[in-house]
Amino acid sequence: MEKAIRQKIFENAKEWVYEAGEKIREHMQRQFQIDTKSNPNDLVTEVDKATEQFFAEKIKNTHPDHKLIGEEGYGDKVENVDGVIWIIDPIDGTMNFVHQKRNFAISIGIYQDGIGEIGLIYNVMEDVLYTALKGEGAYRNQDKLPLLSDNVQIETSIVGMNSILACENKRVNEKKIQQLIKDCRGTRSYGSAALEFAFVAEGIMDCYVTMNLAPWDFAAGYILIEEVGGKTVQATGDPVNLLTNNTIITCNKQIYQDLTNYIEFK
Amino acid sequence: MEKAIRQKIFENAKEWVYEAGEKIREHMQRQFQIDTKSNPNDLVTEVDKATEQFFAEKIKNTHPDHKLIGEEGYGDKVENVDGVIWIIDPIDGTMNFVHQKRNFAISIGIYQDGIGEIGLIYNVMEDVLYTALKGEGAYRNQDKLPLLSDNVQIETSIVGMNSILACENKRVNEKKIQQLIKDCRGTRSYGSAALEFAFVAEGIMDCYVTMNLAPWDFAAGYILIEEVGGKTVQATGDPVNLLTNNTIITCNKQIYQDLTNYIEFK
Repeated sequence: MEKAIRQKIFENAKEWVYEAGEKIREHMQRQFQIDTKSNPNDLVTEVDKATEQFFAEKIKNTHPDHKLIGEEGYGDKVENVDGVIWIIDPIDGTMNFVHQKRNFAISIGIYQDGIGEIGLIYNVMEDVLYTALKGEGAYRNQDKLPLLSDNVQIETSIVGMNSILACENKRVNEKKIQQLIKDCRGTRSYGSAALEFAFVAEGIMDCYVTMNLAPWDFAAGYILIEEVGGKTVQATGDPVNLLTNNTIITCNKQIYQDLTNYIEFK
Repeated sequence: MEKAIRQKIFENAKEWVYEAGEKIREHMQRQFQIDTKSNPNDLVTEVDKATEQFFAEKIKNTHPDHKLIGEEGYGDKVENVDGVIWIIDPIDGTMNFVHQKRNFAISIGIYQDGIGEIGLIYNVMEDVLYTALKGEGAYRNQDKLPLLSDNVQIETSIVGMNSILACENKRVNEKKIQQLIKDCRGTRSYGSAALEFAFVAEGIMDCYVTMNLAPWDFAAGYILIEEVGGKTVQATGDPVNLLTNNTIITCNKQIYQDLTNYIEFK
């Protein structure tokens, strides 16, 4: 993608993300004020749909040739990665949205012909925007994120993962995951894949491992991680697939090889 | 404790917490600027000690009859809970301090004759202070925290725990913990016991379960949880002991009974 074109699309995306974030904050506050007995699951569905629709309309009006992959049904039927595709999760971390009223994010990855060009992850309630442009680095608000440390081992790593991975399951050998939990310095679980990607990009976690993410969960994070010198692949080692659900490892490259030793598919 | 006396001690504690927090923020920034190669473990030790010493001196000068239990060696030799005791963790969440440069807290619980009177948990980098006075409620900054929901079940709960609990261990039946992970709505792990208590008090998690906490890890949180109508006990069901390490369940009372079904000591 040409740099000037990318910059223009990025400016659009950034403006819309801030606008959508403001709407979400207002909506949450209004709704919770009007009726504290309202079902929070209905609220999240409503906000999720309204936010995706907002982006769908903005994109259609401004960039009619772009396509949209979204969770809530306002996207296009996308069968290949040709052209420019916006991959959007209007609220990543819906359980946090409902239960915590914070710690959720808007996630937008913009790809051209399968190449990640622009990533935005907006921690709505904290008003922290993570951004990345291909080849131009990643930012947390105005601060450029440094490249990930070149001096990390499993033993000194903080591993992001859901504790369900350590439980008996049909997918991976839980004993190996338990060994990872014991070998690393500590684990964290925040309940938003997009934010967990952002934390790996910041270097405050050294990896994030998960067995089932939709494209809208990782599309933005993938680009952030690229721009700080990290690595994102399927847990099998295959490249991620933008059109299906994926197992995901995203990490500091230094620990990638060792990390794979702990993941054994059944 | 008389209300007026408690209020005075609380005002002291609050002033000192803010002052200590400011020092920590300055110290971190200066240190990281001067020498990014410095060993972060040394830094945390230095800040930990300096902060506890700061409190020890303030307490000794202002309330010479009060005692101090602390992690870093500036406390008194306390063998019973008689009198007024300050139980202080100058940095709760040292791994977060080192790795994340945020998500750590100063934790102070003040007890008289074993009764929790004043609790303060200060999320230093976010500048969020949780406070509680016995019988007067709990606050997040200026906002009074509501009583915990009277409508929570395990199935709709967010459980705070370290994933190590789900791993093979000699203490509790990990299969039962794994069942808890599967039965609840989700788990979270933030890496600071004090903040995890604060999140339970806010109702953004419904419980926090852990197998080994020192008094300074839970002394403040215990008081916060009391003031929002929650419950804190040893995992055996026994009352917490202020003078030793404890297993801990802190939770919304609604789920306490069901929660205990998942904890089976070996």
